Amino acid sequence: MSVNRRKFLGASLLAGAGSALTAGNERGMPKPSPRRSANGKLAIGILGVGGRGRSHVQQLLYREDCEVTAINDIDPKALEACNQLFVKAGKPLPKAYLKGDRGYLDLLQNAGTDAIIIATPWEWHTEMAIESMKAGMYTATEVAGAFSLDECWELVNTHESTGSHLFFLENVNYRRDVMAVLNMVRQQVFGELIHLECGYQHDLRDVKFNNGKQEYGGGVEFNDRGFHEARWRTQHSVLRNGDLYPTHGIGPVAMMADINRGNRFVYLTSMASKGRGLHDYIVNHPQGGPDHPNAKIEFKLGDVVTTMIKCNNGETITLFHDTNLPRPYSLGFRVQGTKGLWMDVNQSLMIEGKTKSHEWTKADEWLRKFDHPLWKKYEKQAENAGHGGMDWFVIHSFVEGAKTNAPAAIDVYDAASWLCITPLSEESIALGSHPVTFPDFTRGRWLKNKNTFASGDLY
Amino acid sequence: MSVNRRKFLGASLLAGAGSALTAGNERGMPKPSPRRSANGKLAIGILGVGGRGRSHVQQLLYREDCEVTAINDIDPKALEACNQLFVKAGKPLPKAYLKGDRGYLDLLQNAGTDAIIIATPWEWHTEMAIESMKAGMYTATEVAGAFSLDECWELVNTHESTGSHLFFLENVNYRRDVMAVLNMVRQQVFGELIHLECGYQHDLRDVKFNNGKQEYGGGVEFNDRGFHEARWRTQHSVLRNGDLYPTHGIGPVAMMADINRGNRFVYLTSMASKGRGLHDYIVNHPQGGPDHPNAKIEFKLGDVVTTMIKCNNGETITLFHDTNLPRPYSLGFRVQGTKGLWMDVNQSLMIEGKTKSHEWTKADEWLRKFDHPLWKKYEKQAENAGHGGMDWFVIHSFVEGAKTNAPAAIDVYDAASWLCITPLSEESIALGSHPVTFPDFTRGRWLKNKNTFASGDLY
Repeated sequence: MSVNRRKFLGASLLAGAGSALTAGNERGMPKPSPRRSANGKLAIGILGVGGRGRSHVQQLLYREDCEVTAINDIDPKALEACNQLFVKAGKPLPKAYLKGDRGYLDLLQNAGTDAIIIATPWEWHTEMAIESMKAGMYTATEVAGAFSLDECWELVNTHESTGSHLFFLENVNYRRDVMAVLNMVRQQVFGELIHLECGYQHDLRDVKFNNGKQEYGGGVEFNDRGFHEARWRTQHSVLRNGDLYPTHGIGPVAMMADINRGNRFVYLTSMASKGRGLHDYIVNHPQGGPDHPNAKIEFKLGDVVTTMIKCNNGETITLFHDTNLPRPYSLGFRVQGTKGLWMDVNQSLMIEGKTKSHEWTKADEWLRKFDHPLWKKYEKQAENAGHGGMDWFVIHSFVEGAKTNAPAAIDVYDAASWLCITPLSEESIALGSHPVTFPDFTRGRWLKNKNTFASGDLY
Repeated sequence: MSVNRRKFLGASLLAGAGSALTAGNERGMPKPSPRRSANGKLAIGILGVGGRGRSHVQQLLYREDCEVTAINDIDPKALEACNQLFVKAGKPLPKAYLKGDRGYLDLLQNAGTDAIIIATPWEWHTEMAIESMKAGMYTATEVAGAFSLDECWELVNTHESTGSHLFFLENVNYRRDVMAVLNMVRQQVFGELIHLECGYQHDLRDVKFNNGKQEYGGGVEFNDRGFHEARWRTQHSVLRNGDLYPTHGIGPVAMMADINRGNRFVYLTSMASKGRGLHDYIVNHPQGGPDHPNAKIEFKLGDVVTTMIKCNNGETITLFHDTNLPRPYSLGFRVQGTKGLWMDVNQSLMIEGKTKSHEWTKADEWLRKFDHPLWKKYEKQAENAGHGGMDWFVIHSFVEGAKTNAPAAIDVYDAASWLCITPLSEESIALGSHPVTFPDFTRGRWLKNKNTFASGDLY
């Protein structure tokens, strides 16, 4: 029945190119009829049930309005670990799809799901998202950076030709302080926005290397000799030089600056420092040393990659990528307007006429005062979720969107505009920080789109 | 006598192009005979005795080893205010030179001074520094940003052809925390340097505008209707778009990164946000309003100008200029290496293996532990000086250098390399953030120069 409905939806959306093309852009339009499986619950399939995928499964197991009916992975151990979550929750096991790299196609064609979450290694996101949208699924994908602009266009084109929505799972857009600051931005507390900063500044050395047994650290192995993320993530640092992981930083900031909703990214220029951190880590590690084979590797990734982005409406954004050095975790937000600014590294702000001038004031009271309505409403439910509750919100928003087949709160145009920073930054760095332009993935619809992200009282 | 000695020095230095050319670079060479006026004290002339010049005069009045024997300004009121400092200190009045824009030439030719401090509006620094060096003076100039690369070359060429030293008065290089961090950098506490940040982030709206009577604020006037800095500084914000004031940020960081001493700036790219702050200030000020004539002005300066600099040895530097918006003062330092980092906005650091990993630790204890020997030695003397004591150090270093005609601690190559960021950033912004290359003002001598800044126990 789910498959039939899906086919019906697909047919109706494809009836005219016009209707298909507008599907992703008509945020204010009447919503299509709700999608529900036979038992009235949204049926979700998960592609990739490693650490991140299982964390989503756990969130979904808490909910009554949906069920995970199918899971897929290339690793039987991951499937088994995932099954244990269902056992523990006293819920029926999902159908499990194995069969190697393309086992996920089986799931998409045969599992009868309504919606899909993709939580596989970065290089699989686009292929899977495209196949999932083609199969009529309300599709969510985990975050990453893209490999090419073409890939970003493919996501957009597939959404527009199939009518299937793509939800980009940027959880940091739902971080409590970030949503409070978004609330402040919308209430003009900072005046007109002028400059923003953000980044992914996270010492990932214990993620990029381990001993092949434990998930984090304990050795200097990666690729085939590593385990968990080190099996796939580290190789990007070996061969690529750019902002590999832009979205945790740029996502929240893009939403504050109304990107693709009356504003857009115009161009960027990137600069990479030398790369020393990963080599040093290998050489200085008790399990490594100067004679370890990995000590010979020249990592192309600069330790700190800085990107400046110019927005159509005149705002500038500075974006950092800094994952190879010992440092405290910090997304480095700065939101600055004509009336004041907030920074998260010192958790402080200054608002003209409201706080002492020329001085920092601790932000906590302000963040409480401007706590986003959704956080006030869902605080209790979010408590169990990962990453300080923001994971609950991103999954909630996805599920609620999928239930009514509503345009994604963080949509394919967001995904394309944020993901493309990676190949653009690689290009700029390769060209000695030459500026490179952003495509307009909305094909001009940003001129009229309104920013409705987190503006309702449901999600 | 002083003039004769000066002529002699000039002649000897010019005897061969070789000796003149190396004068500014031979930090390890035997020093020329000390320069002293008739009474054994260094005789100093001050060009420009506005607020900044008088603050230097006050510093010099505290000292026993030098005397201010001549002052120059275009404004008789400034000369009179300066004289009052001498009266108050019970010291003989200096010769005063008025006679309009070029009255300073009179001073240079006739006052019998050994050394000169230039504290005039930005557009006079280079002309005066060149004339002062040509007159054989040990010359100090206040900070600014340059107008063209040619001007920077002129400074270098004049130094090299005359043998006169140029001391660039970047006081922030002597800030106590900055010197402690320099000390830490030299002791490899941060490991190998990777990324640096700095800037001039200072709400100057009350400096750029006043009521024509008071120095700061109280109105929205500038140029002929303004007073003090507003008479000359604000016009730069009207017509220029770039990092107008790079040296407070870049000076300290350049010294940490051994710029011109085994390293150099290679290229930069700059980006400017829209400019709203100054217009908003005029429109919202009780003495301004939408009908005030200044409300019509379109200020070309972006409110936040961000610059990325690539260094020869692979380090990156992010530099901010942010003077039009309400915000706390912050030079925004970040010094990051393979073993950890310091930031001044949260006054915190993390050092691998020494502080808690993945966490910020307050920097104060570390800054005390690595307090620079010069600060330990001169703490008491510095107490009376401006800007937290750093003004004492920069003047001390200049005076001690001048007394022995030693190469300047912050020299003409530093001046040129730092000052040129302004025209380079203007060029880059005008070209849509196109990268632009730094000249090598040392003509290759950076390959062998050693970093001796603040390495002695005298200054």
